[in-house]
Amino acid sequence: MQSMKIEFAPIGIIHSPFVELKDMPIQPAGAVGIKGTVVVFEDYHPGLKDLDGFSHIILLYHFHRSRSFNLHVVPFMDSEPRGLFATRAPKRPNPIGLSIVQLDKIEEGVLHIQNVDILNGTPLLDIKPYVPEFDAQTGVRTGWLEKARKTVSSWKSDDRFK
Amino acid sequence: MQSMKIEFAPIGIIHSPFVELKDMPIQPAGAVGIKGTVVVFEDYHPGLKDLDGFSHIILLYHFHRSRSFNLHVVPFMDSEPRGLFATRAPKRPNPIGLSIVQLDKIEEGVLHIQNVDILNGTPLLDIKPYVPEFDAQTGVRTGWLEKARKTVSSWKSDDRFK
Repeated sequence: MQSMKIEFAPIGIIHSPFVELKDMPIQPAGAVGIKGTVVVFEDYHPGLKDLDGFSHIILLYHFHRSRSFNLHVVPFMDSEPRGLFATRAPKRPNPIGLSIVQLDKIEEGVLHIQNVDILNGTPLLDIKPYVPEFDAQTGVRTGWLEKARKTVSSWKSDDRFK
Repeated sequence: MQSMKIEFAPIGIIHSPFVELKDMPIQPAGAVGIKGTVVVFEDYHPGLKDLDGFSHIILLYHFHRSRSFNLHVVPFMDSEPRGLFATRAPKRPNPIGLSIVQLDKIEEGVLHIQNVDILNGTPLLDIKPYVPEFDAQTGVRTGWLEKARKTVSSWKSDDRFK
């Protein structure tokens, strides 16, 4: 099983104002109001029907600049090494990114989105509707992030995950 | 870009009481209290450090039973065909599943989880910590799901996505 290969292909491209990793917001919470677009390849346009009823969508994408990973990383919001899976760092064994963004409108296969923390040119893997009953949790503990998370909007990326 | 291939490999296996698609809950909200385990391959155990501080985790996994897709689907919670990307149906161009589950404890690379809506034997692709500041949204509209979503806990899967 460990050697099984799973092959995916982009279904579109995400465009944003961020052309380099440095100075990017590290999460959508730090990217409030930042606009971008998702250009979905024409073959998949029929699948976008009804999506405009949703105010928020989950984007899964390929961290295409990630070429390697370390199982211990010092996150942007901390000074101690943490286990990789306890962080949202982009360099992962399977470098899949997840962002929940606001959907403003859809025009001819182009999604106009807000709160974008994604690098320009990022390959899109999937779009799912955001549904609070599925995706919002209460009574949450967040370990090492407990102190830092309330200030996440002011944290920016740097070169460490280049 | 459309023909670019992105290759992933499992980092572990998800175990659950669900051995067939029929009668599965369709989302964690319908699987409250259902227990399962995530067996992470040994190579990746160091990456689990600090994860036990989090009460909820995001699992990304391969819908390994999905062999094809339709861009219009009739979701479990509706009677009308909807655009695939406006649903959480498992048969997708890139069949990546996303579930937010409760993490009870970690023992020697085995994560004990609750609220599991995942098929037994599912290949795990990534684990991310669930952080409300990143992942919980307010003021949300949910389109065609608006009426159905409050009753999601009572909906079960059937054979349609086999």
